[in-house]
Amino acid sequence: MQIALLGGTGDIGEGIALRLARDSDHDVIVGSRKEAKAIDAVTEYNDRLEARGHDVTIEGYDNETATANASVIVLSVPPNYAASTVSDVESGLEDGDVLVSPAVQMERDADGFHYDPPEIGSVTEAVAEAAPEQIPVIGAFHNIAAGALTDLDNDLTADVALTGNDDEAKTKTGDVVEAIDGLRALDAGGLTASPEVEAITPLLINLAMNNDGMHDLGVQFR
Amino acid sequence: MQIALLGGTGDIGEGIALRLARDSDHDVIVGSRKEAKAIDAVTEYNDRLEARGHDVTIEGYDNETATANASVIVLSVPPNYAASTVSDVESGLEDGDVLVSPAVQMERDADGFHYDPPEIGSVTEAVAEAAPEQIPVIGAFHNIAAGALTDLDNDLTADVALTGNDDEAKTKTGDVVEAIDGLRALDAGGLTASPEVEAITPLLINLAMNNDGMHDLGVQFR
Repeated sequence: MQIALLGGTGDIGEGIALRLARDSDHDVIVGSRKEAKAIDAVTEYNDRLEARGHDVTIEGYDNETATANASVIVLSVPPNYAASTVSDVESGLEDGDVLVSPAVQMERDADGFHYDPPEIGSVTEAVAEAAPEQIPVIGAFHNIAAGALTDLDNDLTADVALTGNDDEAKTKTGDVVEAIDGLRALDAGGLTASPEVEAITPLLINLAMNNDGMHDLGVQFR
Repeated sequence: MQIALLGGTGDIGEGIALRLARDSDHDVIVGSRKEAKAIDAVTEYNDRLEARGHDVTIEGYDNETATANASVIVLSVPPNYAASTVSDVESGLEDGDVLVSPAVQMERDADGFHYDPPEIGSVTEAVAEAAPEQIPVIGAFHNIAAGALTDLDNDLTADVALTGNDDEAKTKTGDVVEAIDGLRALDAGGLTASPEVEAITPLLINLAMNNDGMHDLGVQFR
């Protein structure tokens, strides 16, 4: 499968790209608004993977080309750009593609981080509203700290809760999730169940801030 | 310590009462709106504990007497009664007592369960608003399925996220939580961080509904 990480120069995209390239046979593509920035990033990612003895090549393109070359497109962009990025890359989308939304909108005050979703209820739902009708949107990868993903010495053991209304797209996204060693994909329900999943992200940051020895947290359901 | 489970005839109160009585040396008290109902419940709880070889006695009172006899008072009542129960038992509260709020308000539609907090943001915050100023309120026990607690053959391994603005009360509540075998108490921040914790509860139900072999879920952060 071809998997694109749009905004893959950011830390969540970096972590997913590195781990998919290392752990799976999927073709991994990093997209950025500027192609040159994507190429710089993947040069560094490929060097890191090669230094660890992995003979794999992540490719870098502008977001639109990355989208055109992939069938699973992960919107690893800041939450306020998630919906507009869908419009930016729309010409690269085709039937059978799946959009994956990992972004979470938060605010911070003296008590810590708080979930601060867009009016529609969640970033995942905002992406679904912006997406062409025939392109399914799946929420995923919300609840893993970027630092846990990017540190390749860290053995992951975490669950990834998936939301979305298209079962085939959810299964495909679950296969991508589970291609990363240590991740388990779980079905958390339809798109309207996305707020409950996204809301865990600020909690993970608050727990890391308030408890000695906890950092870069993930979540497990059992 | 004396710990009261108000509404302790319901399944969450039952589970906490049984496990605290079995696993700790704390005095466990079940409260109900009607004393007779509390006494019926603890008779059954004590029989179950005795049948398992545990020589302990849970006591039953009306909610107000239970409150007067306890220093940690858990509001294990339905979410829409949590704030009004505080008013009902206010005469039994004294300086040094801690109120603990485990209730979560949810709604259900075709997609599953959704977090549906009161206007103020969370049930925990609604309880804090209803409580006398000098009585601290701590959110706890939101994210463990009642079935996991009441089944005494089930070995728990779960985290309990605590919210609240009073550090001493939070430590005391954490000690109560960790008096139950298999539970770890974590500091999730101030009272305004309660929505992110409460929102996990409907997610746990949705995960149990949508994934084969999952039921009575808890959560772990790591």
